[in-house]
Amino acid sequence: MDSAVDVVVVGAGIAGLVTARELTRVGHDVVVLEARDRVGGRLLGATLAGGQSIEVGGQWVGPTQHHVLALIRELGLQTFPTHVEGRNIAELGGTRAEYTGRIPRFDPVTLADIAQTQWRLDRMAARIPLAEPWSAPGAERLDSQTFDTWLRRAARTPRARGFYRLLTEAVFSTGPEDLSALWAAFYIGSAGGFDAMIDTAGGAQQDRVVGGAQTIAIEMARRLGDRVVLDSPVTAVEWDAGSVRVRTGHHTVSARHVVIAVPPPLASRIRYSPGLPGDRDQLVQRLPMGRVIKVNVAYSEPFWRADGWSGQANSDTRALGTVFDNTPHSSEGGGPGVLVGFLEGRHADRCSRMMPADRRTQVLEDLAGYFGPRARDPVDYIERDWAEEEYSRGCYGAFAAPGTLTRFGPHLRRAVGPIHWAGTETATRWAGYMDGAVESGRRVAGEIGVPG
Amino acid sequence: MDSAVDVVVVGAGIAGLVTARELTRVGHDVVVLEARDRVGGRLLGATLAGGQSIEVGGQWVGPTQHHVLALIRELGLQTFPTHVEGRNIAELGGTRAEYTGRIPRFDPVTLADIAQTQWRLDRMAARIPLAEPWSAPGAERLDSQTFDTWLRRAARTPRARGFYRLLTEAVFSTGPEDLSALWAAFYIGSAGGFDAMIDTAGGAQQDRVVGGAQTIAIEMARRLGDRVVLDSPVTAVEWDAGSVRVRTGHHTVSARHVVIAVPPPLASRIRYSPGLPGDRDQLVQRLPMGRVIKVNVAYSEPFWRADGWSGQANSDTRALGTVFDNTPHSSEGGGPGVLVGFLEGRHADRCSRMMPADRRTQVLEDLAGYFGPRARDPVDYIERDWAEEEYSRGCYGAFAAPGTLTRFGPHLRRAVGPIHWAGTETATRWAGYMDGAVESGRRVAGEIGVPG
Repeated sequence: MDSAVDVVVVGAGIAGLVTARELTRVGHDVVVLEARDRVGGRLLGATLAGGQSIEVGGQWVGPTQHHVLALIRELGLQTFPTHVEGRNIAELGGTRAEYTGRIPRFDPVTLADIAQTQWRLDRMAARIPLAEPWSAPGAERLDSQTFDTWLRRAARTPRARGFYRLLTEAVFSTGPEDLSALWAAFYIGSAGGFDAMIDTAGGAQQDRVVGGAQTIAIEMARRLGDRVVLDSPVTAVEWDAGSVRVRTGHHTVSARHVVIAVPPPLASRIRYSPGLPGDRDQLVQRLPMGRVIKVNVAYSEPFWRADGWSGQANSDTRALGTVFDNTPHSSEGGGPGVLVGFLEGRHADRCSRMMPADRRTQVLEDLAGYFGPRARDPVDYIERDWAEEEYSRGCYGAFAAPGTLTRFGPHLRRAVGPIHWAGTETATRWAGYMDGAVESGRRVAGEIGVPG
Repeated sequence: MDSAVDVVVVGAGIAGLVTARELTRVGHDVVVLEARDRVGGRLLGATLAGGQSIEVGGQWVGPTQHHVLALIRELGLQTFPTHVEGRNIAELGGTRAEYTGRIPRFDPVTLADIAQTQWRLDRMAARIPLAEPWSAPGAERLDSQTFDTWLRRAARTPRARGFYRLLTEAVFSTGPEDLSALWAAFYIGSAGGFDAMIDTAGGAQQDRVVGGAQTIAIEMARRLGDRVVLDSPVTAVEWDAGSVRVRTGHHTVSARHVVIAVPPPLASRIRYSPGLPGDRDQLVQRLPMGRVIKVNVAYSEPFWRADGWSGQANSDTRALGTVFDNTPHSSEGGGPGVLVGFLEGRHADRCSRMMPADRRTQVLEDLAGYFGPRARDPVDYIERDWAEEEYSRGCYGAFAAPGTLTRFGPHLRRAVGPIHWAGTETATRWAGYMDGAVESGRRVAGEIGVPG
């Protein structure tokens, strides 16, 4: 079954769907080929036993994420604030602090070290030209070291180092030793600074989408109608200067352009004929995905709120290093209270090797450590290991190992003939977030332009 | 066209062919599916204008490479020594030294720094348990930093740092900033020390194979006969606990085992159904290939020998950082003299972006810088950019970015049900060399055992 369109988009995550939406608007005939039986990519909703929706993939949006916030408005969707009232919990170096506002109350030496390190981080990040981080002052030096090496020099106390390790895992879902320091600086810069990245109110975790973030993709797909074709993993792209043929197991679509809107490691698993230039291929060999197991645990009520806790908790020793209140929006009916926790990086490695019952016990014990024994009695437990997903192979996003951006960075966005590259990892603002995915789709639509 | 055998081997490089040879010996029915129209993988011969053979891929063997040396003997092939007589040339920090023996005669401070750094390197490498480098003392610390970070601490002078950068590029075909320090330590340890790795006489560049190293693969394939099927890129492997179905575009082969004997980035481009475990998938996202353009330049005679030079030259500033005499064996007739040079890592990046004529000029100017103006008048010029090869996507081998071995190392060799992993990157001795490829084939044949 063969067909012909103007543009084929590979992948029905936000990046691919925005591309298709923008191109359709200006009159292109577009088809979106999606490998899975659903749209949304790294966004995915699930349903709790009580019928409420819950996010098992990406979920938050926040201020300055103008691209995705505009899209949400366009689609007629609503956001609501993440629950933040109450005391947060932070465990660091064996000490537990409960606090409101931004800063846990640790000892003054630790706090000064944390503050000074953040000042250095933000200064470094602010110097990165976001469209070409490889040309930042000192880019070669930053890209020659891991973020761990950078942090060891910047932070003097073990507690401050533990703090930044924890936050690195929370943000990158991998350890600071895995990242290029230049990538870390770019990523923080692309979010507008460290606070913007880690904050709930005022930051990237400020708001949620009523019905779950996957509805952004679902609503776009609904409008695109039968232009979105599910269950169609693309296996091969044959191309020349002005045309492509995109093959799935079942059919071939001819077009003038193809937009690859899947994570970098998956982009490399499509067979291109002729093969892609060495620069592009070497690049995608060096952009691995982070690793996270996301766990939503539902209780008959949000008991932690009654105890004065916000539900936000962090620890540099627990496997479940980051937790938030993830209770569904009130419009879904008086329902359960939900805590969402993340097993990230090395914690994900270790926990993915456990038997499911042992992993559940680990998660519940960590929650009980934060919030007391009532956390051991959930009414629902939903986990998602994104590294096991054939069509994601990790979350939250890809990152660059040392030496990658300075050698191959310009090839992140450079089209190869009629082959264009979308996806949040190609964004200049909020790379790795939904907002970056929207930016990338708009950029690629601009590259392709109006029908000729 | 479907068929059934005991074992399917994917890839007819040395690792795959050794696997097939060993399994055939004990009575297994084996088929080797090779994507290219030739065998040998990263070994490849070419023919000079005068008819002599020349190696455009891997070529050297040396002492302690017992696996490959035994194989060469078994196949009735001969080796001959790399030409070493004469003075070597080394350029470092703007100074040119000509020397015989191992050590260029730089100033005493540089020499002491080089020697002390090598002592540290060898001490570090000797502590690595080669079968499980992730359990070395201090493995986490080494794996949290790049080799560049390690070298900056170990070597105090810019010249010594330049020296080790040059040698890193020569050995790993990538810069020290790209490598995990733990991977570098493992790799050096797996060769038995730094001298064994970089030396000509007494080391890994000591000997060549008469007729070229690809003949090792060709001779094995000849004996395997129609068990080796060319032009058969494997696209998919379907598997369960006790069987596999291996698909190419044209046919499907059923078997009890499959052996994946291709470099890690290419192993990830096969579609496995069901998908591989997250650990294995995350591992292969983090083992990129080095990058090298190998250039053979032939002259009417080996003029450098008459001038007293060996043909070996190194420079920390020239693109062509490493050069050897690569004149064909005398049995091929009185012929040309050949210099072989390598554009490695960032030099390969830069030179691959040049027009071919400009790249040739660059190479010839570098050779003229080493050996004088006669180097500008070759009779033949053969280059090979291995990153452009769809079925290698880099050379000499894969390397581990920081954080990879400690997180995912055990999955390098761990079979997934009926799927086994061969290839030089899985070896414990001489990983990345032909010898490691042979070791890996023997190991996998042992895993599969005798027909049941």
